[in-house]
Amino acid sequence: MARKRKGLLLVVSGPAGVGKGTVNAMLMQRHPEIKMSVSVTTRAPRPGEIDGVHYFFRTKEEFDRMIEENAFLEYMHVFGMNYYGTPRSFVEAEREKGNHVILEIDVQGAMKVKEACPDAVMVFIAPPSLAILKSRLVGRGTETQESIDVRTATALNELKMLPQYDYMVINDVLEEAVGEMESILTSELLRTERNTTLIEKLTGGETI
Amino acid sequence: MARKRKGLLLVVSGPAGVGKGTVNAMLMQRHPEIKMSVSVTTRAPRPGEIDGVHYFFRTKEEFDRMIEENAFLEYMHVFGMNYYGTPRSFVEAEREKGNHVILEIDVQGAMKVKEACPDAVMVFIAPPSLAILKSRLVGRGTETQESIDVRTATALNELKMLPQYDYMVINDVLEEAVGEMESILTSELLRTERNTTLIEKLTGGETI
Repeated sequence: MARKRKGLLLVVSGPAGVGKGTVNAMLMQRHPEIKMSVSVTTRAPRPGEIDGVHYFFRTKEEFDRMIEENAFLEYMHVFGMNYYGTPRSFVEAEREKGNHVILEIDVQGAMKVKEACPDAVMVFIAPPSLAILKSRLVGRGTETQESIDVRTATALNELKMLPQYDYMVINDVLEEAVGEMESILTSELLRTERNTTLIEKLTGGETI
Repeated sequence: MARKRKGLLLVVSGPAGVGKGTVNAMLMQRHPEIKMSVSVTTRAPRPGEIDGVHYFFRTKEEFDRMIEENAFLEYMHVFGMNYYGTPRSFVEAEREKGNHVILEIDVQGAMKVKEACPDAVMVFIAPPSLAILKSRLVGRGTETQESIDVRTATALNELKMLPQYDYMVINDVLEEAVGEMESILTSELLRTERNTTLIEKLTGGETI
């Protein structure tokens, strides 16, 4: 569709091991108009990391100023640790261009974004079962038994937040999950509340 | 997706000549799980019309009793005219089977259905412009100039009801419009509020 519409902010959460990174990567591969949100951090760049691509690297002073200026959709600010935040300006600039922004974030961060940006589309990627999620974590071969137990317990708590999201995509067959994400994007763009300008033009006799 | 979910009620409105019949017919051709709602009427069957397929043919007394029993999602009851109504039982029975029901209806009827059935998905099919709609009506070759003027004026009033709908599908390229309807169906089924049972199973340790 060539009709110019503001892009969407897609907030994507899901337990570790559910495959949300793979789903989002495939989605972005197919749709160049979908961008991954770039976070601001106070940690030092690792070799190869580029400012504005992997992260926006900022000092603690700069980060604090951004907080004061309400420049974040959400941020994590734990005493003695590095800070991380989602800059509002990046998200808004991409959306104004008509691009969609994916923000992969944990449930706590997601709830803050929902409050800061009520028109965000909230998607939870769920496993077909907790047992399958656990077996995927085991299958990675990189997690200790303790880490797997912790992650599975965390996953259950995350799943309990599902009703706070708009959509649930079950990552069973990857191809289907990606197709469902595409349907969510397509249909959300058709929501009448996202098309008030087009509707005004139409009732004013213009072609849209 | 094999996951059992309750089917959707898709309320579809749009001005005369916009092609909603064509969009819905193509949609049903592709998806046998989509059914057209069958109305109840007090008018006599025409040759070839089958009770329960084209309409449910009922007497005025039966119709009045159905009104009393709150058996309609909406009905039209104009003095001295035949009555028409949308029976709740047909819609609910199909949805319980997992089928989707399309209800093609004018904006007034649509608003009544929305009230009676708050989980209905409200879709408005719009033309790319009023001028294009008018030229389609002219192109039919079956309408008088007066009828075209009346329909165009009615169309404008209908378009003004667009914000009352959930989605706007512009029927410019038929294939695209049908694809958008498919995306709406797919994504609405993924809404968390339509999946409370699945969510309970998932958090209870079951496979969904």
